[in-house]
Amino acid sequence: MFAGGELGDPEAVLDLLRKDDLVVAANGGTRHCRLLGLIPSVLVGDLDSANAADLDHVERYGTTISRFPVHKDRTDLELALAYACSLEPTDVLVFGAFGLRWDHTLANVLLLLHPDFAGTKIALCDGQQTLQIVRDQLKLVGVPGDLLSLLPLSEEVRGVSASGLEYTLRNRVLHRGTTLGVSNRFTGSRVELKVRSGVVLVGHARVGERPRCG
Amino acid sequence: MFAGGELGDPEAVLDLLRKDDLVVAANGGTRHCRLLGLIPSVLVGDLDSANAADLDHVERYGTTISRFPVHKDRTDLELALAYACSLEPTDVLVFGAFGLRWDHTLANVLLLLHPDFAGTKIALCDGQQTLQIVRDQLKLVGVPGDLLSLLPLSEEVRGVSASGLEYTLRNRVLHRGTTLGVSNRFTGSRVELKVRSGVVLVGHARVGERPRCG
Repeated sequence: MFAGGELGDPEAVLDLLRKDDLVVAANGGTRHCRLLGLIPSVLVGDLDSANAADLDHVERYGTTISRFPVHKDRTDLELALAYACSLEPTDVLVFGAFGLRWDHTLANVLLLLHPDFAGTKIALCDGQQTLQIVRDQLKLVGVPGDLLSLLPLSEEVRGVSASGLEYTLRNRVLHRGTTLGVSNRFTGSRVELKVRSGVVLVGHARVGERPRCG
Repeated sequence: MFAGGELGDPEAVLDLLRKDDLVVAANGGTRHCRLLGLIPSVLVGDLDSANAADLDHVERYGTTISRFPVHKDRTDLELALAYACSLEPTDVLVFGAFGLRWDHTLANVLLLLHPDFAGTKIALCDGQQTLQIVRDQLKLVGVPGDLLSLLPLSEEVRGVSASGLEYTLRNRVLHRGTTLGVSNRFTGSRVELKVRSGVVLVGHARVGERPRCG
């Protein structure tokens, strides 16, 4: 899925796509698709930030357009994720979710906690950095030196364990707002995270030359 | 307080400072102080991202340096806020809290929810955009057209009311992850927010020529 924020590293983003991925554009994300030469299957949004070239691109290739009014109760990315989750995908990778409108970036990150999306594995990614949540367990693949941050989103997160990192965590309690989990580092290529109760936001920043999401 | 992220609009930042403000630098924030010609009273951090010119600046003017080891359990901004809150200020304005390391930006935003800082009014600001939390009520000053986003940080926030906005809210329930509160607009110069239970993150993006924080 492509949202309308900053894309990040275009080559790394293309590198992450597989041939059988379904591409969905959320409003301004259409521009990213056009510039990357991708044809979205579906465009969801109010079309207020898609220009003539973007619309021409999707109309030419038969993209299904799911148009919403400008004055609506949900952001384009929430609407697009609702559509994507209704297809019951194995996972959703969202590009263009980050940007310099901090309220929008934060709203996009908090979408990971949307009650309707709880059953879907969603990751926000710019090719170099990935944000996703862990409620029970999560395995990550990277390279030694990759940065990993664990940010509690619940007031109290219990039973947090993390292996494969410079600072190992064993059955710890993390309190929201504290920064104990910021800027840990991969010691090898695999990290395993476990959480007994609560939700943790996981930030993974890659240092390698071929970024991946995960 | 100056943190080490992106400063934003330097003129707008200077415009926000009052003569009797106590200036605190959190590690790399020292550079912002130097470039703005400000002398921090205190520098808190591990000094790993302050260069020779930054250190020369603070040493020349007698800044108190509170140095922590590089390998520590808390970020420099958490340490600096702990120091600032111990002084029981009326409010703390943090510049340089946002940047392109998304995990750090989010950790900085979540510091607003740190249990130890609950008694202090803290706002993160880049001169144009301000993020702060509301637990009970908050009054904001802006100009017509300013953007305002309300992002629930508690799983459920009850009794949310907002006046002075294009879309008035009256005693609403907001669920975390939903985007109903994103991109509302000031209709006049004052907005009043009330929350009965739960915590809401408030993003205020100014459209006027003389940005203020609030």
